[in-house]
Amino acid sequence: MISLYDDPDTTVQQRTTRLRPPGFWRAWLIGDPLPTSAAPDQTVGKAIGLAIFASDALSSTAYATQEILIILAAAGPGAFGASIPMALAIVGLLAVVTLSYWQTIHAYPGGGGAYIVARDNLGEAAAQTAGAALLLDYILTVAVSVSSGVAQLISAAPAVFPYRVVLAVGLVLLIMLVNLRGVKESGAAFALPTYFFLAMMGLTVGLGGLRALTGTLGAVVDPPALEAAHAAQALTPFLILHAFASGTTALTGVEAISNGITAFSEPRSHNAGITLVWMSAILGTLFLGITILAHQIMAIPSEAETVISQLARTVFGGRGPLYLATIAATTVILIMAANTSFADFPRLAALHATDGFLPRMLTARGSRLVYSRGIVALAVIASLLIFVFRASVTALIPLYAIGVFLSFTLSQAGMARRWWKIGHLAPGQEIQEPGSTLRYEPGWRLKLAINGFGAGCTLVVMVVFAVTKFMDGAWIVLLLVPLLVATFFAIHHHYRQLGQQLAVRPAEAPWRRGRHCVLVPIARVHQGTRAALHYARLLSEDITAVHVAIDAAEAEQVRQQWQQWGEGIRLVILESPYRQVIEPLLQYIAEVARHRQPSEVITIVVPQFVPQSWWQNFLHNQTAVWLRLALLFTPGIVVTDVPFHPD
Amino acid sequence: MISLYDDPDTTVQQRTTRLRPPGFWRAWLIGDPLPTSAAPDQTVGKAIGLAIFASDALSSTAYATQEILIILAAAGPGAFGASIPMALAIVGLLAVVTLSYWQTIHAYPGGGGAYIVARDNLGEAAAQTAGAALLLDYILTVAVSVSSGVAQLISAAPAVFPYRVVLAVGLVLLIMLVNLRGVKESGAAFALPTYFFLAMMGLTVGLGGLRALTGTLGAVVDPPALEAAHAAQALTPFLILHAFASGTTALTGVEAISNGITAFSEPRSHNAGITLVWMSAILGTLFLGITILAHQIMAIPSEAETVISQLARTVFGGRGPLYLATIAATTVILIMAANTSFADFPRLAALHATDGFLPRMLTARGSRLVYSRGIVALAVIASLLIFVFRASVTALIPLYAIGVFLSFTLSQAGMARRWWKIGHLAPGQEIQEPGSTLRYEPGWRLKLAINGFGAGCTLVVMVVFAVTKFMDGAWIVLLLVPLLVATFFAIHHHYRQLGQQLAVRPAEAPWRRGRHCVLVPIARVHQGTRAALHYARLLSEDITAVHVAIDAAEAEQVRQQWQQWGEGIRLVILESPYRQVIEPLLQYIAEVARHRQPSEVITIVVPQFVPQSWWQNFLHNQTAVWLRLALLFTPGIVVTDVPFHPD
Repeated sequence: MISLYDDPDTTVQQRTTRLRPPGFWRAWLIGDPLPTSAAPDQTVGKAIGLAIFASDALSSTAYATQEILIILAAAGPGAFGASIPMALAIVGLLAVVTLSYWQTIHAYPGGGGAYIVARDNLGEAAAQTAGAALLLDYILTVAVSVSSGVAQLISAAPAVFPYRVVLAVGLVLLIMLVNLRGVKESGAAFALPTYFFLAMMGLTVGLGGLRALTGTLGAVVDPPALEAAHAAQALTPFLILHAFASGTTALTGVEAISNGITAFSEPRSHNAGITLVWMSAILGTLFLGITILAHQIMAIPSEAETVISQLARTVFGGRGPLYLATIAATTVILIMAANTSFADFPRLAALHATDGFLPRMLTARGSRLVYSRGIVALAVIASLLIFVFRASVTALIPLYAIGVFLSFTLSQAGMARRWWKIGHLAPGQEIQEPGSTLRYEPGWRLKLAINGFGAGCTLVVMVVFAVTKFMDGAWIVLLLVPLLVATFFAIHHHYRQLGQQLAVRPAEAPWRRGRHCVLVPIARVHQGTRAALHYARLLSEDITAVHVAIDAAEAEQVRQQWQQWGEGIRLVILESPYRQVIEPLLQYIAEVARHRQPSEVITIVVPQFVPQSWWQNFLHNQTAVWLRLALLFTPGIVVTDVPFHPD
Repeated sequence: MISLYDDPDTTVQQRTTRLRPPGFWRAWLIGDPLPTSAAPDQTVGKAIGLAIFASDALSSTAYATQEILIILAAAGPGAFGASIPMALAIVGLLAVVTLSYWQTIHAYPGGGGAYIVARDNLGEAAAQTAGAALLLDYILTVAVSVSSGVAQLISAAPAVFPYRVVLAVGLVLLIMLVNLRGVKESGAAFALPTYFFLAMMGLTVGLGGLRALTGTLGAVVDPPALEAAHAAQALTPFLILHAFASGTTALTGVEAISNGITAFSEPRSHNAGITLVWMSAILGTLFLGITILAHQIMAIPSEAETVISQLARTVFGGRGPLYLATIAATTVILIMAANTSFADFPRLAALHATDGFLPRMLTARGSRLVYSRGIVALAVIASLLIFVFRASVTALIPLYAIGVFLSFTLSQAGMARRWWKIGHLAPGQEIQEPGSTLRYEPGWRLKLAINGFGAGCTLVVMVVFAVTKFMDGAWIVLLLVPLLVATFFAIHHHYRQLGQQLAVRPAEAPWRRGRHCVLVPIARVHQGTRAALHYARLLSEDITAVHVAIDAAEAEQVRQQWQQWGEGIRLVILESPYRQVIEPLLQYIAEVARHRQPSEVITIVVPQFVPQSWWQNFLHNQTAVWLRLALLFTPGIVVTDVPFHPD
């Protein structure tokens, strides 16, 4: 309360308050509150940006190769060789997707991935679909990654199996807390494990490559048994597509940076673009290296031992410290991958909310300038999912990745449409869209081709995913996405309609003072009743006290006390032969309302007893509360509780 | 809304409304609502009174004999003969208790059993203890009787065992519904089974006696095996007392009529007294008859087959229709016994509530003129008990009967004290007590001796019960009774203190109009805000609108719109650097309150958006609700929501 000035021209005063939230347990958990003016500081550079946004994408190297081999195993071990051209194709697809997103990041420096691209180029329905798919996928990323990390932990220590759900939910809540502290701190907290993972995987693949070139890398010692297929199938095109689709889980998380551009320090697009390219390069190299080396050492896909584990112990020559460090890093990165969703989900939800498709509260920044409500919502929903699916990765996986590829497809189709629009602009012409500016570019045909090809590939992957995993749970996602989109549009309709209804218009009729009728329901004559009557006398001259008589003796007592304490105010006693209290009051109020004049306002002044302890509320009829609820939906009637506090 | 007259001398109007609650599902379930004027009709005569109030007491003949034999079995089958003098002693005790209650019923024609007698003669602490013990015992009666009835059903149809809890809770709810219809209807509904039970037991005992006298009654054929005690004990005095205590479960329920005197038609005391004597006579005869015949046929106490079953098939010569009818009647009477508690619990709770020891709502009569809340409370607590104890009679029995004997003891001690007081009055002298009138009576010494002896016996029974069954669950009751009594006194303290604080006193200062400061918090300028401002202008000339600025752009917009729409009202913009909304408002309100003049009232007028569907509430910040909660405990501040309804 420092500066207080009167504006001579207007009736507006402005005050700046130094009110700072008290430092209680919340400050201890997530840090001291930050003022709004501290906002620009909360951005990150490339190194920490990579750690925040890349862990989701990079963690998929831990399972993508294995997913390909598991499908190919249906055609016998001889088909494993197909994994190398397939990995090359996926890396090619990764390059296309990366190029597309690199272009998106530079075309949309204000941030936003599939949602904004689809909104500007394909319309609201496509944008909401892309957004719903992504939001769903972020939730699944948290559930899947944390469950998978806990599963790794269980492989090492089977004793914790009964506590897996509690452990997974606890980890989600821990990541939530770190994110509630704010993006910079969470970046610092998560940079170490990400770079530790990169170091260990780099060492594994690098040393493995070196030993392969020098011929000292043999086959895996004592590999797990190959789970025999019922009969070795032929290597059909469908099987190849299926294996390819499974392998493309490597691409999940690539979109993360495009949604989080605004979290980067200036120049945002530049920093985000470079981080994206670094991420994709690392991801592609690791994925390709692991796939080639896995084939080299003749690794066997198995639920009993992961391919990463087989590779690491072959490269490092047994289960030594380096092997253990690699497995530990893999475990940690899987848990860290959930953090990417915690960075992106709240931002995307806030985007939806800003456009009026999700509750507006999601745009409010919390005490640490992050979208706290989005973070908490993500943690709660993911925890519920973990609880319902008992932290089982096998049960969650079929729901996962469809959303990502749906948003990939929509994003790249949107970009293709953008290039088409740009190609049909006259040179020099500019069109300002909400997310970007369109200017003619000469190379639009190539870019359109790249994005169109990418859209086609991701569409095929999505369809293959949906078809092959439909019965395993993909149907849930195919059902949820349209439901979510419908909900988003219902919310949007509500906000738009309300905005129109609430809008003030210049031709508004001027205010004229009308009559003001005040009714005071009283149960007995006591200090609380007197307080309410005295308040009513402040409001109007037209006051009527109303007593509902259930008991004849009590009504007579009220009538007698009114002679002494009524202060000349009119008292109406309503006899209630069926012992109801609220209903006769409502009937009387309705009658008064029927006979009121135009612009007459009716106020019900209710004495409300405020007890000293909460439990004492059970000792009193909550007539005031019921009356308020009953009259809330009656226009032109205001209910006022006059609290009475006994000392 | 028929008669409407103005009293020329006063400002009081009186109206009689013909408003009748609508006939919806509740009327279908429990009958049409009854007006208060219908109350006197809802009383019962002796025949139906016996059915309502006796089923609890009479149903104990189904297990009392068996309970004695089970204890005596510890001393071997040779000790079974001790059951007959023991049954005679219990019948003697029954006679003493009956005599005592007969005297009580005539001394206290206004109704009330142990609670009223203890209150008038031993003080509030004794009365609350007796009441708490009885209330607890009524709940246990419902749980035990219904569980026991369901257990009989299970003996006949073992397939229903998994559904026993659902079945028991369903039966409790059914009895609740019948009781919510009102005492007369429930009497009619319960008269048939009670008299059916009496007929079957009368036939069994009568025919059995006849066959025993004519020598045609042999021993029971194929009796269940005697569960061998580890070593046959001697028939110690403690064992005899223990068996005697177990047998006195026959006395549970005898007190029911004394609590329900007011349910009887006039002359109440006369009708209730005769009903009590009939009930005790039937109970004593049946109990004694069953015990003698059980010894005659050499019945063996067993969990596998009840003594009643052994007796019935011996008397009727096998498992024919008469045997089945007897077992069915026993099953039904056990379930009906719960009904007695439904007649008494609500009445006793209303007595406590009238004296201010339980929430006042318990004194309100429902749409059918019964104490609906007490009935529903009993059903809910008993159902919970059945749920927690999984409808197991074995688990519930040790909690049962202590409460009854505690209340017996207090009631008879109170009566003894009453005779002592009467004996020390001068002839002709009268003392008016709340429940009765004291007059000298010449035979007071004998009556004192009877009641004193009764009190001593029931005290011993209670102590033996508590000691021998302490570990089995009796400790719960010994813990709960003092806890309940403490709660009752806390409630009483609250009501008494509040009554003093609320009392209006003749020397009250007259009302003087003070200043009225109105604050209107606004988030944006829209139709809802305007409605609130217009309402505020009705209340006072001293209005200040307050906007909490979280977003600088929004604050600027509000400032600009205020030029056009502010109607000259002062606007204070509070900058909130930490993005809080409620806290700066509260701080500002506190500042205004600090500077207010004596007798100045502050009203906060809050625009409240009322959505058309409930789910839309999730799309809006509930600032109004939070502000109300935060300010509820601040004296001298009134919060008024002005609802805004979009069309």
